[in-house]
Amino acid sequence: MFFRTVDYVEGAVRIIDQTLLPSEEKYLDLRTVEDVAEAIRSLKVRGAPAIGITAAYGVLLSLESVLIRSDPDLPRYIFDREKGRTVSVSRSDDFDALRNELFGAIDLLAATRPTAMNLFYALGRMRSIVENAPDDIESLCDRIEKEAFLVFEEEIDRELMIGEYGSGIIEDGMRVLTHCNAGGLATAGFGTALGVIYSAVSSGKRIELYADETRPLFQGSRLSAWESMKKGIKTTILCDSAAASLIAAGKIDVVITGADRIAMNGDTANKIGTLPLAIICSNYGIPFYIAAPVSTFDPESESGEDIVIEYRDSEELTSYQGIRIAPEGVNVYNPAFDVTPASLITAIITEKGLIKSPFDINIGKMRLSE
Amino acid sequence: MFFRTVDYVEGAVRIIDQTLLPSEEKYLDLRTVEDVAEAIRSLKVRGAPAIGITAAYGVLLSLESVLIRSDPDLPRYIFDREKGRTVSVSRSDDFDALRNELFGAIDLLAATRPTAMNLFYALGRMRSIVENAPDDIESLCDRIEKEAFLVFEEEIDRELMIGEYGSGIIEDGMRVLTHCNAGGLATAGFGTALGVIYSAVSSGKRIELYADETRPLFQGSRLSAWESMKKGIKTTILCDSAAASLIAAGKIDVVITGADRIAMNGDTANKIGTLPLAIICSNYGIPFYIAAPVSTFDPESESGEDIVIEYRDSEELTSYQGIRIAPEGVNVYNPAFDVTPASLITAIITEKGLIKSPFDINIGKMRLSE
Repeated sequence: MFFRTVDYVEGAVRIIDQTLLPSEEKYLDLRTVEDVAEAIRSLKVRGAPAIGITAAYGVLLSLESVLIRSDPDLPRYIFDREKGRTVSVSRSDDFDALRNELFGAIDLLAATRPTAMNLFYALGRMRSIVENAPDDIESLCDRIEKEAFLVFEEEIDRELMIGEYGSGIIEDGMRVLTHCNAGGLATAGFGTALGVIYSAVSSGKRIELYADETRPLFQGSRLSAWESMKKGIKTTILCDSAAASLIAAGKIDVVITGADRIAMNGDTANKIGTLPLAIICSNYGIPFYIAAPVSTFDPESESGEDIVIEYRDSEELTSYQGIRIAPEGVNVYNPAFDVTPASLITAIITEKGLIKSPFDINIGKMRLSE
Repeated sequence: MFFRTVDYVEGAVRIIDQTLLPSEEKYLDLRTVEDVAEAIRSLKVRGAPAIGITAAYGVLLSLESVLIRSDPDLPRYIFDREKGRTVSVSRSDDFDALRNELFGAIDLLAATRPTAMNLFYALGRMRSIVENAPDDIESLCDRIEKEAFLVFEEEIDRELMIGEYGSGIIEDGMRVLTHCNAGGLATAGFGTALGVIYSAVSSGKRIELYADETRPLFQGSRLSAWESMKKGIKTTILCDSAAASLIAAGKIDVVITGADRIAMNGDTANKIGTLPLAIICSNYGIPFYIAAPVSTFDPESESGEDIVIEYRDSEELTSYQGIRIAPEGVNVYNPAFDVTPASLITAIITEKGLIKSPFDINIGKMRLSE
């Protein structure tokens, strides 16, 4: 791996600041849970799986903060020989205060962004640890730490499996179009939609990547292009609205995107601009795939209508880097996501294999097999 | 009219610099035909009808330049009482040199942008004047001047008629979505797609306008929003890729765009991003209209396949106002236009009325009636 999207280091969640890419590769050490929440809100770290991991690490960070505050003279970290890594020293003796602090951190992190399912999945795991830990600080600390790293490790494993399954649909010489960034930067470090391409390339297939620039924040031209070019893949960027003419001209073989939340019937929320791509693919008979871990499925959402869509600041459209684009006072419609109906999706590529129509039945079967 | 998109003043083609809007309302006096060509190429003036008028004025400007060069001591302009305006003094006695100069100007202007039909229509008219004028400088000058102003005046009349016919499809309370800018700034001053809305508003209908921002140059959020807000119309901008979710949510009643060139079968070249809108409208059963003067039809193009599409500089995507967006070395796909097949178009609104399917037959009939 040539960069770490999210990492846990001594007393900090370390992220690569994605708002500065590709001009600057800068790592930020977030030292409080408030800083972590702010980094998620401001998209310094983004991508559904990546913010799930960041949030899990944020809970671990808040645990360390409590421990440090409760006994400032103690060493903050020791090297644990058995674990083979540095661990935080847990000496707080107020179990209830610690638990409340952790619940507070979880609530704060859960309120950062409403749509990404993986955020709630990761925080749900952390909450369950806090709720079910025995009444003993040492083991709570141990379990929180273990779970946070497990969220990361399992995610990486899933991404590699998604890549494996996904590369089966990719043939040598294919021209693949993607939207937004569902690569290493959006995830634990390998990627979902881009992971499929990386897997295919690793297995010797020659692939050309077309990356929608992805307005308003250019995750395609800034981030997907940056990481795919680092991997040596021939990469072409285009305006989101130019994908239709490229597809109409027969220059795209398959479209693959990630997902922020998938309903039980297969309806998929993903970055704004995914729905029109799926409609265009359907119009021209081009396969349209979603690549996402099973943790993206939301048991609470029967269909896309149940998915809460985040609306973001109008500034994202009215100016760029402080330079005014649109007239003062104009209204702005700026949803971060749209919902693609399952009927437009060829298959969802997960770490457990491909899920196809009928999605409701096949998603149910997949969940039973968990 | 609250601004003049293009105007002819003493010895200059005066345009409002559209690259600076909406931050700055600056008029430029273009004093050579080379300056006029450069202004068209760099989109300081853009929109198919507007560049047609600009080119016609550019030919007039080149005529004046020749006259001035041929006899520098003479006064450049006199006030012509009969015409009620200042006219250039024509004293050159080298008829062939003058004609060659005019042909050169026409060729230069025709080479600026390849897709806008109105550019070739206007220049075709000017060329025909030069070719057919009697062998006498005075009458050539007079005819050139008359024709250039006629191109403008006829265009304004057409736009008002398009507005009249178009407002028939607009009902009170409708929410209209448009792409790019087909308003006063793109035309002689009233507009085609936006002209339809202005006419409807003038007749007392309450209209909400949704303007796609229109990447890469933001003609929607910069220009359409600016002029429609000046007219007091409630205006909302959105990312091009967000139109699908708005339409899917039932929040748009009709989509209207302009056109840069229309083939004899009704296939329509317009700003990149028009094709996906038409596909999305078709998918959700929303009417999709083109508004354009008859001069946009290209008798040489049987279908969309015959239309030459302009590819623009990669810089338009890789940076904004000098701020780098995409990584160095990335490939860029940047067509200025796409072609919407006639089958996706509800009707074409022209100054002669609405043209509907079967387009090839009805376009033929309309041309016969000319």
